[in-house]
Amino acid sequence: MDKINALRNLMKERGLDAYIVSGGDAHNNDRMADYWRARSWVSGFTGSNGLLVVTQTEAGLWTDGRYFVQAEQELADTCIDLYRMGEPDVPTYDKFLLDKLPQGGKLGFDGRTMSFAAFETLMEKLETKKLTYCYDEDLVGMIWTGRPSLGCQPAFEHPPKFAGLSAAEKLQKVREKMAEGDIAAYLVTALDGIAWLLNIRGHDIDNTPVVYAYALITQQDAFVFIDKEKVADISGKLASQGFTIESYEDVMMRLISLQTSGKIYYDVNKTNVLVAAAMPHRMKGPDKDKDKDILTALKGVKSEIELSNIKNAFIKEGVAMTKTLKWVADVIAAGKSINEEDVAKTITDFRKQQKDFLRDGFETIAAYGPNAALPHYRPEGTGAAIKPEGFLLIDTGGQYMDGTTDTTRTLVVGKITDEMRRDFTLVLKGHIALTNAVFLTGTTGHALDMLARQPVLSGCKNYNHGTGHGIGYCLGVHEGPHNVSPRHMDVVLVPGMIMSNEPGIYEPGRYGIRTENIIAVRELCKNNHGSFLNFENLTYCPYDTRAIDVSLLTQAEIDFVNAYHEKVYEVLSPHMDADEKKWLEIATAKI
Amino acid sequence: MDKINALRNLMKERGLDAYIVSGGDAHNNDRMADYWRARSWVSGFTGSNGLLVVTQTEAGLWTDGRYFVQAEQELADTCIDLYRMGEPDVPTYDKFLLDKLPQGGKLGFDGRTMSFAAFETLMEKLETKKLTYCYDEDLVGMIWTGRPSLGCQPAFEHPPKFAGLSAAEKLQKVREKMAEGDIAAYLVTALDGIAWLLNIRGHDIDNTPVVYAYALITQQDAFVFIDKEKVADISGKLASQGFTIESYEDVMMRLISLQTSGKIYYDVNKTNVLVAAAMPHRMKGPDKDKDKDILTALKGVKSEIELSNIKNAFIKEGVAMTKTLKWVADVIAAGKSINEEDVAKTITDFRKQQKDFLRDGFETIAAYGPNAALPHYRPEGTGAAIKPEGFLLIDTGGQYMDGTTDTTRTLVVGKITDEMRRDFTLVLKGHIALTNAVFLTGTTGHALDMLARQPVLSGCKNYNHGTGHGIGYCLGVHEGPHNVSPRHMDVVLVPGMIMSNEPGIYEPGRYGIRTENIIAVRELCKNNHGSFLNFENLTYCPYDTRAIDVSLLTQAEIDFVNAYHEKVYEVLSPHMDADEKKWLEIATAKI
Repeated sequence: MDKINALRNLMKERGLDAYIVSGGDAHNNDRMADYWRARSWVSGFTGSNGLLVVTQTEAGLWTDGRYFVQAEQELADTCIDLYRMGEPDVPTYDKFLLDKLPQGGKLGFDGRTMSFAAFETLMEKLETKKLTYCYDEDLVGMIWTGRPSLGCQPAFEHPPKFAGLSAAEKLQKVREKMAEGDIAAYLVTALDGIAWLLNIRGHDIDNTPVVYAYALITQQDAFVFIDKEKVADISGKLASQGFTIESYEDVMMRLISLQTSGKIYYDVNKTNVLVAAAMPHRMKGPDKDKDKDILTALKGVKSEIELSNIKNAFIKEGVAMTKTLKWVADVIAAGKSINEEDVAKTITDFRKQQKDFLRDGFETIAAYGPNAALPHYRPEGTGAAIKPEGFLLIDTGGQYMDGTTDTTRTLVVGKITDEMRRDFTLVLKGHIALTNAVFLTGTTGHALDMLARQPVLSGCKNYNHGTGHGIGYCLGVHEGPHNVSPRHMDVVLVPGMIMSNEPGIYEPGRYGIRTENIIAVRELCKNNHGSFLNFENLTYCPYDTRAIDVSLLTQAEIDFVNAYHEKVYEVLSPHMDADEKKWLEIATAKI
Repeated sequence: MDKINALRNLMKERGLDAYIVSGGDAHNNDRMADYWRARSWVSGFTGSNGLLVVTQTEAGLWTDGRYFVQAEQELADTCIDLYRMGEPDVPTYDKFLLDKLPQGGKLGFDGRTMSFAAFETLMEKLETKKLTYCYDEDLVGMIWTGRPSLGCQPAFEHPPKFAGLSAAEKLQKVREKMAEGDIAAYLVTALDGIAWLLNIRGHDIDNTPVVYAYALITQQDAFVFIDKEKVADISGKLASQGFTIESYEDVMMRLISLQTSGKIYYDVNKTNVLVAAAMPHRMKGPDKDKDKDILTALKGVKSEIELSNIKNAFIKEGVAMTKTLKWVADVIAAGKSINEEDVAKTITDFRKQQKDFLRDGFETIAAYGPNAALPHYRPEGTGAAIKPEGFLLIDTGGQYMDGTTDTTRTLVVGKITDEMRRDFTLVLKGHIALTNAVFLTGTTGHALDMLARQPVLSGCKNYNHGTGHGIGYCLGVHEGPHNVSPRHMDVVLVPGMIMSNEPGIYEPGRYGIRTENIIAVRELCKNNHGSFLNFENLTYCPYDTRAIDVSLLTQAEIDFVNAYHEKVYEVLSPHMDADEKKWLEIATAKI
């Protein structure tokens, strides 16, 4: 309440009728440094999705269904009203602002924390109010004592043997794309794009090894705006690749003074309002609907060197995963009592034994029983105890210097019902169908989604998420530009793209099932009918055959499972001890 | 050459630098009355797709790959150059105009024969030329002696037992949609929409039982512009349903004098330039990308009465088709020599024995051997002789008072290769996969296309057409708004829509395979996962089991074929004589 009141005082001094604390960072990252958690600090609500609006008489927090229970608890002793997004009769935050703000009023927010695309949408919604927008002051920053820093750990090189292309070569590719698109200047705001371009990695954000930075590229110059201390050790290297290092904060002045009459290109979804406003010749910016970010597209297509490294990382991850599966089976068999956190810790421990491992790629979801039916389950404390009954779902991934991994397995830890067995098998059928897909050059991921979903739908069930997302290379676990989703997106799949294949079924209050491998788009053949593509599987980890209803599989599907398991044993067993090999042999036995 | 010169003289008198003879009619129909075949009359080229451009020194005809050979022959003794659309280095007709026309020149065409959408595209392409467009004179009409009439056969009622809803009830539904969309006036230009709305049918166009007409609907009035002689017998009926009959030509004056400040709604793809130009308040017209034609949407969803009638029509069609298949089998077995035309005539003869049959729905494609690999094969003369070897493809449909049908079967008429057998089976697998699809409310046909296509793609083959098209009700054999296609279209499938399911494989110079049934979208079930839809099959006609490689089918697919054939026998055999029954019993025997 003190914080809200302090904020209201600052608002009053400035004549602001409302202030938005968006919960975002300056690059619209999903995950962010603690420095940016202004919304959590003011409101007390710590969920990953939440937006706070404060007026002199009201304060409201908007979040989605994943966080209703948590938000209720965390907001209990505050004056903040909870707005449950998507529920009937609950206004959206822009509708709320439309109702509450006076005609010609003043609306404030920290311009760094809202994307230009989101701001444009908001302005359109509130157009009739003829508001003044004040986005150049971070009011929360003025009252936030003890605010964490933006991180100060040094960045490090992603060396040539991992990166493949040098930063100079990548810069050349970017400049070629710019020339093709008649682009005079390219402002890079996506942190993973910058890390990939510079062949650097860092520690500014948990799980995703990026560094807070901007880049501004023209045919002559390539400025990188970054905390100079973080790159003290590698700045010579960067300079030798053609980059000029400037302070992170200097991006604004450099943009304002940019001399060009040509088109400036930037990703409106990743560029914040303050930076976008500093752009000269704003009218020459990108078409928000048509243009795709150059670096997102470039790094989305993995090179053969990257793919070869990624395959190595996936073998290491398969070893860590399989050891974990055996450990779970052993402790369950021994009647030991373990909880969800124990599982998550175990997989991290096994990863640490692997070469070139950096850290977990995201907080492991080890979800027992009904917990697995919650789409973004995060345990409280040590999580649920795992009993010898039903399913345990493990969705986990690691950051290795040679790749980012993401695997989901649903394990049998005790008796399961016929319905659970049927659902597991339907999910597996969908997973196999996508793995085996053959498609023409020019096909979108959207067009393939139905292949994975159809077996699940045929059981009159569904999963409320896409079937697949792109994945980074020692970078984000979710990466564009492609995906496999029921929502149409016109990104075409091209050889070298890698993505997850993860259908599921969730029965609220009962159980959740998901099976996930990573697959790579490959060329298959060319003939008079066209140029055909298919997928290569990258993930090696046994499916739990105890959950399969073999009678629901076709012979081709049975053959697929057996061939996959034969390969899993062949690839992983050399890295196993005798006990583990024995377990893996049984786990990969023919069905 | 005389015709072209006569046209050039008229052009010279008017100062026109070029004149387009588009080959279309006033409603942008695929099929049209002979009155509209101005392009064929001037050029001699009779293909269904062709556009003629004449300047004082050049004349060019643009057509697509289906017609290259035919166009070469038909244009051989003319001064008209053939432009092969889609071939490298062949300019499009707008590119040609851009090159040939002088700055500020004058371009003419009959405004009735170009859609407003096509004209807008053309104007955009030629924008830099600052042309004057002259579209109010039909120059070909001025030199065309003996031009056919627009047809004079009377229209007839589509009686209540077939139509279900009365015309007044349909008009009410249209007005409700108009009110929802804040539409002041709705100009209906699509002939099938008008026929469906008025519950009338006619003879103005071969195959499609429509009448040339316009309708203009407001909340107060409903004008129908039609040749009054054609509706002499039914004008009282139409008046009693709330319609005011005016002459076909009066649509222009009525539009020009239309008193409204509200939005006028019309389908830019079906409304010609002359009519669109007569529209007052042009700026209030529809959004060409967003708006869907109201009547197209309404009639696209079949009522239960319509569906029940359609099912009856499909049984009659199944009887005619099956008798034809037996006839083909018999004459081949007897070593008689028949040709493609004999097959087409036979199916029409069998249809004529069926109740409420009107006419064929399109020219039957009976394509033997390599002919079946041509996507829109039309035989010359009596067509190829059918030898006892390979495949015969029959794609055919009829217009019945109670339904429009469309079926394709590929028949074994002699020895086939393993590749042909494999391809037939892959096509059948795709056909079965779409028939069995289960999908959520909100799914587009685009999302389902991959289910039918995947088995074909898995054999590294493809078919260069959509998997399915909507189909009319005693109307067009191709009807919107929905389809099942690799091209994304955001029309959602809803219960009551009917469409074809017709994957294929075409091997140029060798053979063609297609298997087509009509299926209807139905509600399946609702539960906590959503509201599920599936398809009901409407077509009864045996698949040629001699072409199936059973080893490529799953048990579920084998069961599907057997269950379908059991149903085919059950439904059709009561309408067969003893000989036919015996043949059908064998044709539908278990595989």
